Amino acid sequence: MIGLGLSRTPPPPYYAVIFTSQRTPGDAGYGEAADRMAELAAKQPGYLGVESVRDASGLGITVSYWKDEASIKAWKLNLEHTAIREQGRKQWYEAFEVRIAKVERAYNFKAL
Amino acid sequence: MIGLGLSRTPPPPYYAVIFTSQRTPGDAGYGEAADRMAELAAKQPGYLGVESVRDASGLGITVSYWKDEASIKAWKLNLEHTAIREQGRKQWYEAFEVRIAKVERAYNFKAL
Repeated sequence: MIGLGLSRTPPPPYYAVIFTSQRTPGDAGYGEAADRMAELAAKQPGYLGVESVRDASGLGITVSYWKDEASIKAWKLNLEHTAIREQGRKQWYEAFEVRIAKVERAYNFKAL
Repeated sequence: MIGLGLSRTPPPPYYAVIFTSQRTPGDAGYGEAADRMAELAAKQPGYLGVESVRDASGLGITVSYWKDEASIKAWKLNLEHTAIREQGRKQWYEAFEVRIAKVERAYNFKAL
């Protein structure tokens, strides 16, 4: 971490999965499932980190970082992850957009 | 918009600038400057959209989308944008990370 909530990722290239979502009102088991998914993802081969923010309106952006596309595909195929995604579409999200992107350059700043 | 706060971007490939930041406490002119930058960015050639979330702890993720790397570079060189970035480092941010990434695949979901 270079600051609270920022991931210290290795030098590029690596991959990012940008997940932008609008939650439905209420929790309905979402918080527990999100924690479990974060815990599972962190154990996957090729996982490099995650940054996640949601505001009071329910709009959220979660960016997870991965060594390569194979790591992202393996995580997508994880059985528990697949099952929970179903529930996401049925219950937790009004809308979401997923973008898979190759990080080519990066730089950072930290105040003294 | 496919939902409040989600950008309707064109089919990939295109570029994303992922800006993850931790704000210092207090506003100190930040809100006004952020609005102005959003307005200016939207007028730049190659701008495709933006998604931005900040939570109550001051952690934020802003992802702006661009047609190509040339559009990103032109926006970075914009004089007003350059001046405001200086103030960001001096005053508004405890830390930030910027990642430039090429979006290769995307898919979305919207509840009925």
